[in-house]
Amino acid sequence: MSELIGTTGLVVRNIPRADAALVNELGRYGVATIHEAQGCKGLLAPRITPIQRGTVISGTAVTVLVAPGDNWMFHVAVEQCQPGDILVVAPTSPCTDGYFGDLLATSLKARGVRALVIDAGVRDTHTLRGMGFPVWSRAISAQGTIKETLGSVNLPIICAGQLVNPGDVVVADDDGVVIVRRVEVAKVVEASRERADLEDHKALRLAKGELGLDIYNMRGRLSEKGLRYVDSIEELEG
Amino acid sequence: MSELIGTTGLVVRNIPRADAALVNELGRYGVATIHEAQGCKGLLAPRITPIQRGTVISGTAVTVLVAPGDNWMFHVAVEQCQPGDILVVAPTSPCTDGYFGDLLATSLKARGVRALVIDAGVRDTHTLRGMGFPVWSRAISAQGTIKETLGSVNLPIICAGQLVNPGDVVVADDDGVVIVRRVEVAKVVEASRERADLEDHKALRLAKGELGLDIYNMRGRLSEKGLRYVDSIEELEG
Amino acid sequence: MSELIGTTGLVVRNIPRADAALVNELGRYGVATIHEAQGCKGLLAPRITPIQRGTVISGTAVTVLVAPGDNWMFHVAVEQCQPGDILVVAPTSPCTDGYFGDLLATSLKARGVRALVIDAGVRDTHTLRGMGFPVWSRAISAQGTIKETLGSVNLPIICAGQLVNPGDVVVADDDGVVIVRRVEVAKVVEASRERADLEDHKALRLAKGELGLDIYNMRGRLSEKGLRYVDSIEELEG
Amino acid sequence: MSELIGTTGLVVRNIPRADAALVNELGRYGVATIHEAQGCKGLLAPRITPIQRGTVISGTAVTVLVAPGDNWMFHVAVEQCQPGDILVVAPTSPCTDGYFGDLLATSLKARGVRALVIDAGVRDTHTLRGMGFPVWSRAISAQGTIKETLGSVNLPIICAGQLVNPGDVVVADDDGVVIVRRVEVAKVVEASRERADLEDHKALRLAKGELGLDIYNMRGRLSEKGLRYVDSIEELEG
Amino acid sequence: MSELIGTTGLVVRNIPRADAALVNELGRYGVATIHEAQGCKGLLAPRITPIQRGTVISGTAVTVLVAPGDNWMFHVAVEQCQPGDILVVAPTSPCTDGYFGDLLATSLKARGVRALVIDAGVRDTHTLRGMGFPVWSRAISAQGTIKETLGSVNLPIICAGQLVNPGDVVVADDDGVVIVRRVEVAKVVEASRERADLEDHKALRLAKGELGLDIYNMRGRLSEKGLRYVDSIEELEG
Amino acid sequence: MSELIGTTGLVVRNIPRADAALVNELGRYGVATIHEAQGCKGLLAPRITPIQRGTVISGTAVTVLVAPGDNWMFHVAVEQCQPGDILVVAPTSPCTDGYFGDLLATSLKARGVRALVIDAGVRDTHTLRGMGFPVWSRAISAQGTIKETLGSVNLPIICAGQLVNPGDVVVADDDGVVIVRRVEVAKVVEASRERADLEDHKALRLAKGELGLDIYNMRGRLSEKGLRYVDSIEELEG
Repeated sequence: MSELIGTTGLVVRNIPRADAALVNELGRYGVATIHEAQGCKGLLAPRITPIQRGTVISGTAVTVLVAPGDNWMFHVAVEQCQPGDILVVAPTSPCTDGYFGDLLATSLKARGVRALVIDAGVRDTHTLRGMGFPVWSRAISAQGTIKETLGSVNLPIICAGQLVNPGDVVVADDDGVVIVRRVEVAKVVEASRERADLEDHKALRLAKGELGLDIYNMRGRLSEKGLRYVDSIEELEG
Repeated sequence: MSELIGTTGLVVRNIPRADAALVNELGRYGVATIHEAQGCKGLLAPRITPIQRGTVISGTAVTVLVAPGDNWMFHVAVEQCQPGDILVVAPTSPCTDGYFGDLLATSLKARGVRALVIDAGVRDTHTLRGMGFPVWSRAISAQGTIKETLGSVNLPIICAGQLVNPGDVVVADDDGVVIVRRVEVAKVVEASRERADLEDHKALRLAKGELGLDIYNMRGRLSEKGLRYVDSIEELEG
Repeated sequence: MSELIGTTGLVVRNIPRADAALVNELGRYGVATIHEAQGCKGLLAPRITPIQRGTVISGTAVTVLVAPGDNWMFHVAVEQCQPGDILVVAPTSPCTDGYFGDLLATSLKARGVRALVIDAGVRDTHTLRGMGFPVWSRAISAQGTIKETLGSVNLPIICAGQLVNPGDVVVADDDGVVIVRRVEVAKVVEASRERADLEDHKALRLAKGELGLDIYNMRGRLSEKGLRYVDSIEELEG
Repeated sequence: MSELIGTTGLVVRNIPRADAALVNELGRYGVATIHEAQGCKGLLAPRITPIQRGTVISGTAVTVLVAPGDNWMFHVAVEQCQPGDILVVAPTSPCTDGYFGDLLATSLKARGVRALVIDAGVRDTHTLRGMGFPVWSRAISAQGTIKETLGSVNLPIICAGQLVNPGDVVVADDDGVVIVRRVEVAKVVEASRERADLEDHKALRLAKGELGLDIYNMRGRLSEKGLRYVDSIEELEG
Repeated sequence: MSELIGTTGLVVRNIPRADAALVNELGRYGVATIHEAQGCKGLLAPRITPIQRGTVISGTAVTVLVAPGDNWMFHVAVEQCQPGDILVVAPTSPCTDGYFGDLLATSLKARGVRALVIDAGVRDTHTLRGMGFPVWSRAISAQGTIKETLGSVNLPIICAGQLVNPGDVVVADDDGVVIVRRVEVAKVVEASRERADLEDHKALRLAKGELGLDIYNMRGRLSEKGLRYVDSIEELEG
Repeated sequence: MSELIGTTGLVVRNIPRADAALVNELGRYGVATIHEAQGCKGLLAPRITPIQRGTVISGTAVTVLVAPGDNWMFHVAVEQCQPGDILVVAPTSPCTDGYFGDLLATSLKARGVRALVIDAGVRDTHTLRGMGFPVWSRAISAQGTIKETLGSVNLPIICAGQLVNPGDVVVADDDGVVIVRRVEVAKVVEASRERADLEDHKALRLAKGELGLDIYNMRGRLSEKGLRYVDSIEELEG
């Protein structure tokens, strides 16, 4: 399927989507936990940041490839969206223009789309926050776009350094965005659940003042690696 | 007049300012609408971001050219300001130092100045937000500046990639900053009004679930350009 | 002592800390005032930004040197912390990974640590804000780290362009972070106090509309440097 | 196969490689021609630049995923290389450290490897140029790396914004690096050949002073789009 | 004329060009000398760098405004060029795509155009160097562009932070690019000549070991500003 | 001594310099070898790049702190230089202006200074290369500077992320710049010598086709860490 990356002029109507209940459960764990739970993979580059604070969201990816400065394919993509989807958009070359604003958000909201993730710019950010339509983007820019060039909808894309297949799970929060493969979602939900439980348990011990050095039993290995304690800096200089 | 760009050692006392009523009306439409309404021009580079959220402002530009790390001309500029003005500041070479803080903001506020736009750094941002003095800047930095070198006040400048003439209109919101030429303000107000009305109308239709594809009648042109729909990705790979 | 910069495999247990009362008083003045009061030095690069807004904090530095993508030394550092400390962390080479999250914050909070300053990435930012544990960082990234390589604790480090000695004072607010040498803290407190008083006084005069040009008696020197006022731009072009 | 992206701890011994004759022919056309010939896809981000000038090279990708600041997997990868290969390396998070220098180049050269493409740093660049071992990298840095953490060899990776499968074709020159899918290489060779011929033909006409406007028959379409010629700028201002 | 900045859909056929003999003489002095001679103004941002080394060139600007990822207006611009011109190109929003390659260079060379200055990307750089067609650009990228959107030719543009009017003088060398206003060219030639003579004279004295401190008579002013000499660092610490 | 970092208005006349013979020997090993030999410390940030190629140099640091856009202290520094010195310059806040050009290079050359390292901009680069005066800088920019503000000469400074004491050793080549503490130079020479010998020996074995995996005996440890070899990717997917 990787030959399809970068192809333009195509829209795929039916995509297999990850199971909705599992997608929703992933939304509970947050990006850092899921990223760790699936083996530290799938994280979008940190240049993708939220325009709002305090929102955690999960959904199924509808992927969009767009030309630089051209948002035509957004309109094509809206029609392919279902409730629970998240639009994931990548430009064919780096671009900070404002591809997306309040009108498109209104349209996506009407289709039940949960959020936008875009490796480019957005605008009308004040209105978007007011509407409660969450966005993760590379830039904020009012720069207008045109409608001249075809991209694609629902082909695999590379977005901010990660491959995103249509139907993959997208989880986003204040830390950024992580992608979970559709076929791995059950496994990752399970691992996230376990990790979250484990972390709750550790948090209780740490809150009481226990040291990570002891909880994780690190002292021996640190010493083997050669870690040396001195009482004061004068000891080193003397 | 372009010979004057970059000239230092000069202050122009009287500048023609855009009509106040029109300037104020522009403040209602926001940066993205105005930028589109005037033909997608006049937008400052997206490196200029607000230090606060949710403020929309418009005013007439008092332009200031400053040396790197030297904020002397701010004091000269204050005297040239009138109620309704916005200070627009560019350094002669790239600089992130904190040219501007609460004292200068107090001084500008006392003169009725509405905001600061600067392609350099500012400081005391917590106090500035508390005072309600809005700022759009390239950087936040406490780095102090000196008072040794002349710049200019009320000559045309290039700020964040746009020419700004003294008396031009500045509109700024969460999306960034746009400049409207003084002589074009009436035309741009009119066009913004129309665009805003049109967008309200479209928003209603989109909110009901109508598709942009249909509202804008895009299907034919997409098809002419060669857009092809397939039922599934297997169809492409088979 | 500068030979120790960059050394790994060492932990210094006892460090001289700046006087707590003076450290706390510095927290009242804010970064910009202190930076000026100590002769415009000690400011961390503006790439270090707060993940929260409106927090001003001061404390004594516990310094940590870490390998890229490896947060092992955080656990070693926690044990060396006392109430009133601020953890200051630098990587041995540029890295945006998420070294620090809610578990480590819980652990530091339990030791009375006041904040984290790190020239690298952090994660769980939503939770960190909720816990009220303040952080200044270079990046936000959920990218996980490992525990394989030794760094150091309580040796002098270079963090975001400034030397930080263990026990130095760290002051941080919405503008960024400034370091005050432990041996200079009394002098800097005194100078900050004076500067703050002076600024309050000036703010009152500026708020009444007095001009900086007059308060600071700048007109003569501007004129000597050759500043020229013209009534209009036509005067220049004619 | 996309589930394998980001997986660590694995080495694939046998990979299907693109046909050697076709790979070599692609080396004749250069990056810009091939990128166009395959529909403007496959180009690595422009942050990947050559450390030398005037070298055009093509080869088959041996892919390597490495941890930040850890070059252990290079040694694992060398054993998997064959004459005609190009090593393509991506870090699991952004890193500019010097992963690669003259010793590893000596080792790769001894295996017949043609070049290195790496979305991170390299060092010993003077020696590398002297050896005639070509490198395209994101950074030049002498910063040393360690050998602690497993990555992968010959799994699909994302390098500088593009998916690279083991066995895909890599073409690199002064303009950057392009990836051609192994299964598309014959088609792309054919298209590149045609494009190169066509360009030679056009170059002859352009060199004689014929205009692109006429050769490509653009005047009509420009006029339809509304392009307007005026004799002088005064005509517009009058 | 500043209302025309950012306007699209227009081509100006006849532009007043700076005097050819003066333009050519400017080419002798280099960018740093001319920039100083005209009062430290007119320098393009340092992101504009040459793709070759050792070329100094001067010419008259033919200005081009282009859409992001769209090089159509290059073909329109070629027809407006005369021997001695330099094409100066700015995109309407930031873009690193490869707008320009060997075919367009062949066409410009056939018209006697001397160079290209572009605040975007170029490609075929190896061939361009081989042809001896000099280029100053923001990026090197093989990324292809399209031909769909109108820009403008020979209207004033902002390129890399400077206003460029059609017919202004462009001087470019290894240090970057400077713009000299057409109406100021005679004055700037004169000032450059004087500056160059003066520098030759100073260079002779400095080469003999005379100090700038003495030649420029700086000691008194340094002392007034408070510069203090100490014999050793111990003197300060004692 | 760290209190002196950032202090302005001071010049230290006599500094202890590292032993000349050892300094010269370090110049033989190159930056990467020395950096490793001294425990991977002392490397300037990779933003410092050479303006020339193929030069390796070593010398003793004369340190200079300068204000943004102000090169006055260069003239003060020249007088303090001796044959064998390298000027190391840092600005008090980030700046890309062209502080240094052919005249200052002529003056430094007359004093026997070997090179300039600057975390800011330089100009006249073509002439500098012609003169054979090597420079490592952050930027190339013709932007002129002024002479108004005091900095310091021969106090410790932070340059591009490293502390540099006057008299420390500076080694620079195509890979960048490394600092060796004056008091450690003998130890580092010895370690570099050993490392260079060792590398020569390894290079011979690698050139014959021996694998690093075997030379360094890595297979066991890789296996312990869990590295798994598979014959083909199908094996993983099946």
